[in-house]
Amino acid sequence: MAVTFARGFRAGTAACGIKAFTAGASAIPRDQRDDLCVVHSAYPCDTGGVFTTNKVKSATVVIDQLHLQRNRVQAVTINSGNANACTGAQGFRDALLMAKLSADRLDLDPDQVLVSSTGVIGRYLPMDAIKPGIAEACGNLSAQSGEAAARAIMTTDTVPKTAQAEVDLGDRTVRIGGMCKGSGMIHPNMATMLAYITTDAAVEPGLMTKLVRSVADRSFNQVTVDGDSSTNDSFLILANGAAGNDPVRADSVEAEQLEAGLVLVAQELARAIARDGEGATKLITVRVLDATSDQDAREAARAVASSSLVKTAVHGGDPNWGRVVCALGYSGAELALDRLHLTVGGLVVFERGAGVDVDLAAVRRAFEQPEIEIVANLGLGEGRSEAWGCDLSEEYVRINADYTT
Amino acid sequence: MAVTFARGFRAGTAACGIKAFTAGASAIPRDQRDDLCVVHSAYPCDTGGVFTTNKVKSATVVIDQLHLQRNRVQAVTINSGNANACTGAQGFRDALLMAKLSADRLDLDPDQVLVSSTGVIGRYLPMDAIKPGIAEACGNLSAQSGEAAARAIMTTDTVPKTAQAEVDLGDRTVRIGGMCKGSGMIHPNMATMLAYITTDAAVEPGLMTKLVRSVADRSFNQVTVDGDSSTNDSFLILANGAAGNDPVRADSVEAEQLEAGLVLVAQELARAIARDGEGATKLITVRVLDATSDQDAREAARAVASSSLVKTAVHGGDPNWGRVVCALGYSGAELALDRLHLTVGGLVVFERGAGVDVDLAAVRRAFEQPEIEIVANLGLGEGRSEAWGCDLSEEYVRINADYTT
Repeated sequence: MAVTFARGFRAGTAACGIKAFTAGASAIPRDQRDDLCVVHSAYPCDTGGVFTTNKVKSATVVIDQLHLQRNRVQAVTINSGNANACTGAQGFRDALLMAKLSADRLDLDPDQVLVSSTGVIGRYLPMDAIKPGIAEACGNLSAQSGEAAARAIMTTDTVPKTAQAEVDLGDRTVRIGGMCKGSGMIHPNMATMLAYITTDAAVEPGLMTKLVRSVADRSFNQVTVDGDSSTNDSFLILANGAAGNDPVRADSVEAEQLEAGLVLVAQELARAIARDGEGATKLITVRVLDATSDQDAREAARAVASSSLVKTAVHGGDPNWGRVVCALGYSGAELALDRLHLTVGGLVVFERGAGVDVDLAAVRRAFEQPEIEIVANLGLGEGRSEAWGCDLSEEYVRINADYTT
Repeated sequence: MAVTFARGFRAGTAACGIKAFTAGASAIPRDQRDDLCVVHSAYPCDTGGVFTTNKVKSATVVIDQLHLQRNRVQAVTINSGNANACTGAQGFRDALLMAKLSADRLDLDPDQVLVSSTGVIGRYLPMDAIKPGIAEACGNLSAQSGEAAARAIMTTDTVPKTAQAEVDLGDRTVRIGGMCKGSGMIHPNMATMLAYITTDAAVEPGLMTKLVRSVADRSFNQVTVDGDSSTNDSFLILANGAAGNDPVRADSVEAEQLEAGLVLVAQELARAIARDGEGATKLITVRVLDATSDQDAREAARAVASSSLVKTAVHGGDPNWGRVVCALGYSGAELALDRLHLTVGGLVVFERGAGVDVDLAAVRRAFEQPEIEIVANLGLGEGRSEAWGCDLSEEYVRINADYTT
């Protein structure tokens, strides 16, 4: 049920032909799929967001940052097919109008609506197509439309991406659901990543803002290279309190439990992005242990998971641990080769400063699984982190994958 | 004539089967090409070098940094097929032995020889193959072997890469020649880049050390993302004084002239690396003007030239200036969209804060040339720089290149 799994959240969708109209079409394509969705909460939400650090920001990102200041959001309207970025004053007018049209339909104030766009940069939104789409989506809101919403935000994604979890907070069970779009293959100069997590937990105002950065650092930022690339990257967490629990306060045990649930859902979504590379055949999980700090571990894990040479070696079934060590070396993390312990698919390939003579056939079998785990124990401290990527295929592989052998 | 264009430099080569022996072969492959070369100067050289910033360094890099301290280098011995990286104490012994064997043959001290290796990481050098190779290469030194030397250092390169220039310094003409290896496609997690420039200019001791970083910043670092990735990256400039000019002193007019010549040769070599991507069909030159600083300009140009989305758009003939603006936005450089002026293939595509309606057919024609220039005038200061890349093809393109249209 994804983004409508938590109580009090509904979603609606519409097929507007946004990409086609952006490219100059005069009618909606016959086979147009949904490309707009509205997520609505029955109650005002405590909302936290992290956004792209790109100096060129979509109008939607700027509008959202403005609307979040009042922290009484009750809806999010999202379109695919056009990014509304590099669109100047007209872009801001269009983003505000998306919020206002949604608010009018939902009996909210415009600043209670957040907006996201994803698609081509530098074209004005086809508002004539979007206006009726918002009306339609607001008219078919349903608690059953979480999956449809996840499909409506897709661009180059090959599958919709959703996740959900339940967390016991005292005597209440709260629900957490989420959806995202983005493709692991486009990394590191990625297309837009959009992610939304909704929960019916009751929380003290501002808690989601406190948690959202930390959740992102352990999930989406570990698959999208800091989330700082696209003009539109956005990650939102909305908590509407429908579960009726005592409001969770910062730094409480319940806050830790809730954060763990949010991280669980966010990591599942992040892994889905990593797995969804066109042509990718396997998910790569990189776990870095015993780094000097969590930050060092994050950088090291991300460097390995995003290394094109590691990705091609994995694709080619080539146990080339040298490429892993090389990526660790340029990651910026502290590293001492004589402390490094490296396993690939559970097999030790490097320890005590040198490669280990392993059964190459066994390593190859490990590489051939649909998921492969690379674990680097740096032996320096207590920092740990994970990152995710996918393998890389085709011609790029042809010159790299069999380079060792 | 490449690295032997400057007077007093000779090169020798040998076919040792280093890659084959590293992989366990017991004999040199029948069709083995040259994989080892020695470059020798008739006189001690003033030598400057810049090396990888990777925390994991090849033994050769460490040895070179040590030998450069005496600054009386007269030879460089280079092998392809094995990187001698992550090879512990044995790696250092092997690198030192490469220098010593060369020195013995050339009547030099070991610290007058620099060594470079490129190839697979984590395997010991097959010294039984390298020893006779060094003897052979030292025995066939010739001023005609510059091209052969450029071939001997190739790994995944599809063509040897050489460049040369002459510079008038007062009443003498000095020669500058160079060779390099590296492939634009492997970027950004590149395979090793090795580059060597030789000149017969006479210079005061230490001048090459002063100049080499500045030359690298305007050439190789603009195609290899800071040159900080591989375990083995090395760039050396050797000046042997055979031209008989008055020694060039730092901060003189002659030093500027000599530096300009070195930059010219280095940039031609860097462009050759960018052009040599497997599957690449065109060279992309990105010129950034009027940035707040040269450093900002360098970062901005490099971000655009290395953007996979820009590379695929160029390959697909897609005038997607949004991707260029996006890359400028995440480059870290100061940027004000209303000041930005952007041309692609000579056609203005963005100015005064918005995309320009251009003749898309004309833009497409520009994209279809074998070389394409993207010029971004940031309108903020006087900083300028160039960077180079190649287009990106195949499946990666399939999901990106036609995304606008």
